[in-house]
Amino acid sequence: MSKTVYVTRRERFNAAHKLWNPAWEDEKNLKTFGKCANPNWHGHNYELFVTVKGQPIEDTGYCVDLKDLSDVIEDLVISKLDHRNLNLDVDFLKDKMTSCEVVAIGIWDELESKVNAMGCKLHSVRLHETENNMVEYFGGE
Amino acid sequence: MSKTVYVTRRERFNAAHKLWNPAWEDEKNLKTFGKCANPNWHGHNYELFVTVKGQPIEDTGYCVDLKDLSDVIEDLVISKLDHRNLNLDVDFLKDKMTSCEVVAIGIWDELESKVNAMGCKLHSVRLHETENNMVEYFGGE
Amino acid sequence: MSKTVYVTRRERFNAAHKLWNPAWEDEKNLKTFGKCANPNWHGHNYELFVTVKGQPIEDTGYCVDLKDLSDVIEDLVISKLDHRNLNLDVDFLKDKMTSCEVVAIGIWDELESKVNAMGCKLHSVRLHETENNMVEYFGGE
Amino acid sequence: MSKTVYVTRRERFNAAHKLWNPAWEDEKNLKTFGKCANPNWHGHNYELFVTVKGQPIEDTGYCVDLKDLSDVIEDLVISKLDHRNLNLDVDFLKDKMTSCEVVAIGIWDELESKVNAMGCKLHSVRLHETENNMVEYFGGE
Amino acid sequence: MSKTVYVTRRERFNAAHKLWNPAWEDEKNLKTFGKCANPNWHGHNYELFVTVKGQPIEDTGYCVDLKDLSDVIEDLVISKLDHRNLNLDVDFLKDKMTSCEVVAIGIWDELESKVNAMGCKLHSVRLHETENNMVEYFGGE
Amino acid sequence: MSKTVYVTRRERFNAAHKLWNPAWEDEKNLKTFGKCANPNWHGHNYELFVTVKGQPIEDTGYCVDLKDLSDVIEDLVISKLDHRNLNLDVDFLKDKMTSCEVVAIGIWDELESKVNAMGCKLHSVRLHETENNMVEYFGGE
Repeated sequence: MSKTVYVTRRERFNAAHKLWNPAWEDEKNLKTFGKCANPNWHGHNYELFVTVKGQPIEDTGYCVDLKDLSDVIEDLVISKLDHRNLNLDVDFLKDKMTSCEVVAIGIWDELESKVNAMGCKLHSVRLHETENNMVEYFGGE
Repeated sequence: MSKTVYVTRRERFNAAHKLWNPAWEDEKNLKTFGKCANPNWHGHNYELFVTVKGQPIEDTGYCVDLKDLSDVIEDLVISKLDHRNLNLDVDFLKDKMTSCEVVAIGIWDELESKVNAMGCKLHSVRLHETENNMVEYFGGE
Repeated sequence: MSKTVYVTRRERFNAAHKLWNPAWEDEKNLKTFGKCANPNWHGHNYELFVTVKGQPIEDTGYCVDLKDLSDVIEDLVISKLDHRNLNLDVDFLKDKMTSCEVVAIGIWDELESKVNAMGCKLHSVRLHETENNMVEYFGGE
Repeated sequence: MSKTVYVTRRERFNAAHKLWNPAWEDEKNLKTFGKCANPNWHGHNYELFVTVKGQPIEDTGYCVDLKDLSDVIEDLVISKLDHRNLNLDVDFLKDKMTSCEVVAIGIWDELESKVNAMGCKLHSVRLHETENNMVEYFGGE
Repeated sequence: MSKTVYVTRRERFNAAHKLWNPAWEDEKNLKTFGKCANPNWHGHNYELFVTVKGQPIEDTGYCVDLKDLSDVIEDLVISKLDHRNLNLDVDFLKDKMTSCEVVAIGIWDELESKVNAMGCKLHSVRLHETENNMVEYFGGE
Repeated sequence: MSKTVYVTRRERFNAAHKLWNPAWEDEKNLKTFGKCANPNWHGHNYELFVTVKGQPIEDTGYCVDLKDLSDVIEDLVISKLDHRNLNLDVDFLKDKMTSCEVVAIGIWDELESKVNAMGCKLHSVRLHETENNMVEYFGGE
């Protein structure tokens, strides 16, 4: 089969963060980010949807074994973000704003090479911060 | 950062409507639209997903402040549709069929110029009429 | 088996309504019910959860055949409420306020005798008007 | 009407917290609470369901105006918990463990007298910490 | 604290089954159970909600450690039902009809003594077979 | 109107299946597919989202009558898959692996010509096997 299918795995992580630009005065942070700038942090149940594209292999019917994909996401992303502080505890977010946009880009960068070595290609990273706010990143510029 | 991210805000509105073409006889309306043509109206809890694309600004990590986007959607769309009759009460749906398709296009037209002036670009309007029926419009022809 | 189990069936209906007390002046209606008093109606996707209690029969494992329960709910409730105006089109809500509370009680009264003749007992009617507002009625005073 | 109906309002808040007993050594905290004891906090999108019981008033069909109930919950609970640190920022959780159980009891105690003065009676506080973990408190011992 | 709180853990399992009474002729099975009697089986994503009641311990704020409760449910229930055939593969459902009611009772019986030895008391087992059909069992007759 | 809108209909089916390559030894099947290779089958509540693209007709506001689309999906897909065994009972999956990818492609092939004769064009078939695993197929290679 040489038909392209998009396969998505959902994972979840619960994390603390705040939106705070250390180069700015407190007042500007509070004015810009409102309650998201609470100095003592707040947090979210993040939902992460990782989509890969590939051709199903005839022997298995799989583009990718979702157990393997889940293991990679667990290893490279969830184990680093779950029950953590996104601003303080995460190597790949160091010195970055932890907006949903930036976190999604960071997750893409963590996953890209390892996923692309699995016989499929990373297509998108979608991250839901709340039931009302979500972002999606497809790589590239 | 010059990476393009898609950011989505969900909003909701509860509205009455009916599908009824005033140029047609009653019988044709009832035959074409079935129970959706009930003369005394019916209604829905609509879910609206507005997606914009943009590059996160380094200082904030935001493509767009979702509070600002939400305010624009509230001002231009929700305040006009929520707890209203789509056929009778909404200026931008006047003399139109209030199918989910047409309402989504109308919402796009309301939002486009104002959203595109916010430093990002309107990408799509997705409208869920029920848990089983939904449409998405990306602008253009 | 003489063990009591509670069995729930979810059904849905999409309806228009408004909150309006005809004994009151317009101004009092608008002040009391706010946007729910919009004269031209609004509407909802209602979710209805009907729970019965009973003992599973050994031959089938069923307290009640959910297909039969669904048919009764369809016949007595959904066919009367779906794609209707709750204030104008529904015999059992005539001259009543169509608050979620009153609609739930009306649905209970419609269902009670027929459900109780099916070998189980009506336990509760839960009605969701939106994802944020819901009521439950267990019968009686 | 003197029929008792249970009315539920859903609200949401996003907060940081950790499970940490200051009377214990670090090691015991980490052993007991695992990743929930992360010193730099984690967080959740909490969903709160507040249920009151009452009799619908004939004039309105309401047990309670859900707008009023929502305002009370906002004022007494959400404004104190949303985008906050449950361990550090919340007066009514001071010196308490911020388990879901304890937070739910705290919310009950905040709401009880004010809700019971609204013509209905507080019935339960249900708090969802994740899609898999939730608690419900009905007051009393 | 001697306040009683109800704590719920959600787990999931994906299983095959059919409704078929071996004491009956084929025709009666097909007439009674309709498409649920398909000889080659069908299946569901079951959602299981296990609720315990208990008093939060002051040192932890927990009625029960949900990790421990989850482990017990995994060990006694999920490991036996997930990716299994409920009619053929499950010791505690042997020679029983695999209706949602009977499966819920079977799960209760599996869990009761072990859960009641954890410092809390099993309160209910709620089992969702589809988004429209669910049962709840509280033990006893 | 010559504006292109994407219209989606959700349908559901409950089916049994297993992942098993008959050309392989048992051991290789069990090693490759893990619990999904359970010889006695397992099953899922599948959610199917069929998206078509088209231009709304001015007279109706419809790209396609969703009742008609639903009837076509019911006739060509749901009636063949619901309460069935995907490996044994489905003509269009005969001798195929019943991975989510392959089932989605099969559904596309069933629907394509009939949907494209309805005045719109089949755009994608999205199939959710669980809340965590889903695939989408857009046709073509």
